[in-house]
Amino acid sequence: MTDMEEIKKKIASDPFARTLGVRFDEIREGYAKLSMQVRDDMINFNGSTHGGVIFALADIAFSAASNSHGTAAVALHANITYLKAVTPGSTLTATGIEENKTRKTGLYRITIQDGDGDQIAVFQGVVYRKGQPLL
Amino acid sequence: MTDMEEIKKKIASDPFARTLGVRFDEIREGYAKLSMQVRDDMINFNGSTHGGVIFALADIAFSAASNSHGTAAVALHANITYLKAVTPGSTLTATGIEENKTRKTGLYRITIQDGDGDQIAVFQGVVYRKGQPLL
Amino acid sequence: MTDMEEIKKKIASDPFARTLGVRFDEIREGYAKLSMQVRDDMINFNGSTHGGVIFALADIAFSAASNSHGTAAVALHANITYLKAVTPGSTLTATGIEENKTRKTGLYRITIQDGDGDQIAVFQGVVYRKGQPLL
Amino acid sequence: MTDMEEIKKKIASDPFARTLGVRFDEIREGYAKLSMQVRDDMINFNGSTHGGVIFALADIAFSAASNSHGTAAVALHANITYLKAVTPGSTLTATGIEENKTRKTGLYRITIQDGDGDQIAVFQGVVYRKGQPLL
Repeated sequence: MTDMEEIKKKIASDPFARTLGVRFDEIREGYAKLSMQVRDDMINFNGSTHGGVIFALADIAFSAASNSHGTAAVALHANITYLKAVTPGSTLTATGIEENKTRKTGLYRITIQDGDGDQIAVFQGVVYRKGQPLL
Repeated sequence: MTDMEEIKKKIASDPFARTLGVRFDEIREGYAKLSMQVRDDMINFNGSTHGGVIFALADIAFSAASNSHGTAAVALHANITYLKAVTPGSTLTATGIEENKTRKTGLYRITIQDGDGDQIAVFQGVVYRKGQPLL
Repeated sequence: MTDMEEIKKKIASDPFARTLGVRFDEIREGYAKLSMQVRDDMINFNGSTHGGVIFALADIAFSAASNSHGTAAVALHANITYLKAVTPGSTLTATGIEENKTRKTGLYRITIQDGDGDQIAVFQGVVYRKGQPLL
Repeated sequence: MTDMEEIKKKIASDPFARTLGVRFDEIREGYAKLSMQVRDDMINFNGSTHGGVIFALADIAFSAASNSHGTAAVALHANITYLKAVTPGSTLTATGIEENKTRKTGLYRITIQDGDGDQIAVFQGVVYRKGQPLL
């Protein structure tokens, strides 16, 4: 396998991503695109998709994009702004891009869309890199 | 049942909280204390507790504290700062307090501790209330 | 004057913006572009442009974009991620766009560039609208 | 002078803090308390204290607390939640504490009060330390 293939395999081995049924549709340097279907056990007491599920999908895209260079990235801070309630059964898509990268730090922006293509949340994450290889 | 008992029952009926195995140890007006045990399927590809799981626990405490007055609270924004990596098997505790409450908005602060009593993350959440009753 | 001209005049009458020497280069519905020159009294003890100055410029663009519809918008939350240190004397530009707008809330994203066109910070702001007219 | 006195002198030499009339009431390791009086040129177009001024005061307390150990701390991210509008003429107080400190990173929490002792905003800041001495 090439390095990039091994990096992608490592990132996609995430157990909690598997628990949620996340699909890693695309990973390349500084970029990740993921999707998942919202199950009935992923809702809140109002019957909408749980905010923690939306965050988790974005967080997995954040981790994929920030670790895609092959250097281990540790999440320091993340924030999310919710824009629209989402009914279960919908397929969510998270697209993560690298806004900034220095040797030690990085800023990532992840947008989440529902099955209608509406933006439902915006996520930002800041990482710190100690310099250790991912693999 | 009293109103407070019905509010607590509604909050504790959260399906995703049940999926994660969250226990609602205490809910009162403007306050919530929750706990959960980190399972092996809740880790990231490094073997640490997944950031999305830590956020989700905090988010459930945020929802419990902000809906505890019996008026529906909608999450607008949330942020989390990670302080320490957590190995699986640990029991996490989330304590949520109300920092501020106006008729329409509110700010909540949730701190998360691991089984050693170490603070592992700090979460803040902002809600908007349309004025609709929770029940 | 048209309504838009009156709205722009109101927004541009901001006293602290005048104190900082901010120029309102463009304001239209859901959008604002501002600029300012960093003076020697706007630096921190390291000799770089003060983080508070960069935030203030972004905040003024946030206020301009969120009030541009003629309905008073109140800032609930704002966050900024710093990407690059800026030497004084540089001309900063802030560009604010509306990411989301509901009847009562809104999310704005402001990017700040230095004179070299490098992105130096990313700002996000969340507003609440009570429904009162701006003028 | 002792090291702590030199550190305090360096921190208090901040030119923008002087521009705003900030008083450094107390600085010790991991802690800072500052105050300032809101002048008429520090308001927004609604006549309230400008959000950028409140942030700047908090940011200066953040910088003081995070640099107080004598190692240069660089701000990566900051966020602020506004709780109450403040009329000009009021004396604001910012109290900054260290929530977490690792060798390379740190989280600080700054609360801002008006002259009535009401909490008007909550600020959080994350720093990165390259390891360079402050002096």
